[in-house]
Amino acid sequence: MAYIPVEEHLPGITGLLEYRKDTAKPIRDLTQFLLRGPSTLTAGERELIATVVSHHNECRFCTSAHTAVADLLLGESETTEKIKHNILSASVSDKMKALLNIALLVQSGGKNVTAESIEKAKAAGATDIEIHDTVLIAALFCLYNRYVDGLATATPSNSEFYSSLAARIANGYQRLPQGYDHLKKSNQLSNH
Amino acid sequence: MAYIPVEEHLPGITGLLEYRKDTAKPIRDLTQFLLRGPSTLTAGERELIATVVSHHNECRFCTSAHTAVADLLLGESETTEKIKHNILSASVSDKMKALLNIALLVQSGGKNVTAESIEKAKAAGATDIEIHDTVLIAALFCLYNRYVDGLATATPSNSEFYSSLAARIANGYQRLPQGYDHLKKSNQLSNH
Repeated sequence: MAYIPVEEHLPGITGLLEYRKDTAKPIRDLTQFLLRGPSTLTAGERELIATVVSHHNECRFCTSAHTAVADLLLGESETTEKIKHNILSASVSDKMKALLNIALLVQSGGKNVTAESIEKAKAAGATDIEIHDTVLIAALFCLYNRYVDGLATATPSNSEFYSSLAARIANGYQRLPQGYDHLKKSNQLSNH
Repeated sequence: MAYIPVEEHLPGITGLLEYRKDTAKPIRDLTQFLLRGPSTLTAGERELIATVVSHHNECRFCTSAHTAVADLLLGESETTEKIKHNILSASVSDKMKALLNIALLVQSGGKNVTAESIEKAKAAGATDIEIHDTVLIAALFCLYNRYVDGLATATPSNSEFYSSLAARIANGYQRLPQGYDHLKKSNQLSNH
């Protein structure tokens, strides 16, 4: 059971965002812009950054959710599986390998990002904005992972929950429109 | 030199927030609400959470900045000094000691927050919202610290810089109004 009274049918981050709507709004806005806004990185590539950081922070809820979104956007599940264990083995561009490596360094601590890791990304064609966004997405998921686990929110174990959540957030991180509550409670985002 | 071309006269987070205004807006909004919005924790108490997390993440820019703000708001500098080394030795309430302890656990990883640490805070009078906000402030500074250090932004070494910054953000985290740029560039927030 979570450390604070979140709605029982809303596990992980979903209950926290409903619990405190004043803080949820800027968190959603930041996520929407960084992961779905205009970018030379695809939404799938940006979800890979979220996935690899969440995996290394050992946040089961976020890892399952963003793996499901990345798989949906990429149309396959091999890449997410590979980046979790060895970025170099994944079928992504050299630029993405370098950016995912930077994300992992950010996860372990800001000071661990080396000039060499940045140079490697630039040599593979990464722009300054792509480097900026990679660092900020990685930092944002260090926030999310701590928020979700620090308050001991529920982690569903059924993959249907994450597929359903992924289908929704593949389209964006904005709040569910009113009227969706019924659907949420009845089944789609159920914890059972 | 920072890994991306931020304005030279804007060190630490200040240059990053100007570099990418689309992401800066929700980051500022979240910080403003959490650290200056309505709360049963004082602004000074919330700055102590920011300070202790930044200190343990070894982010010199954020530690110096939030130490200066907390000192200004509390009217003394003994408390920030003490919480960095031993929370229990500081002259703060038992509730704040318990909340600062939770913040430190969040800093080290979300899963490290124990039911016992939460119970201790509740027994000392902490509300659910105070616990929520403590976890989220700690998580937010895990984002900030990684953002600032992950992009190797400049860290001024003169204390005048931080006093000047503190005087400004003691009043809030919103963007500087237009017209302030001149002052910024000329001296107050200079890196020199």
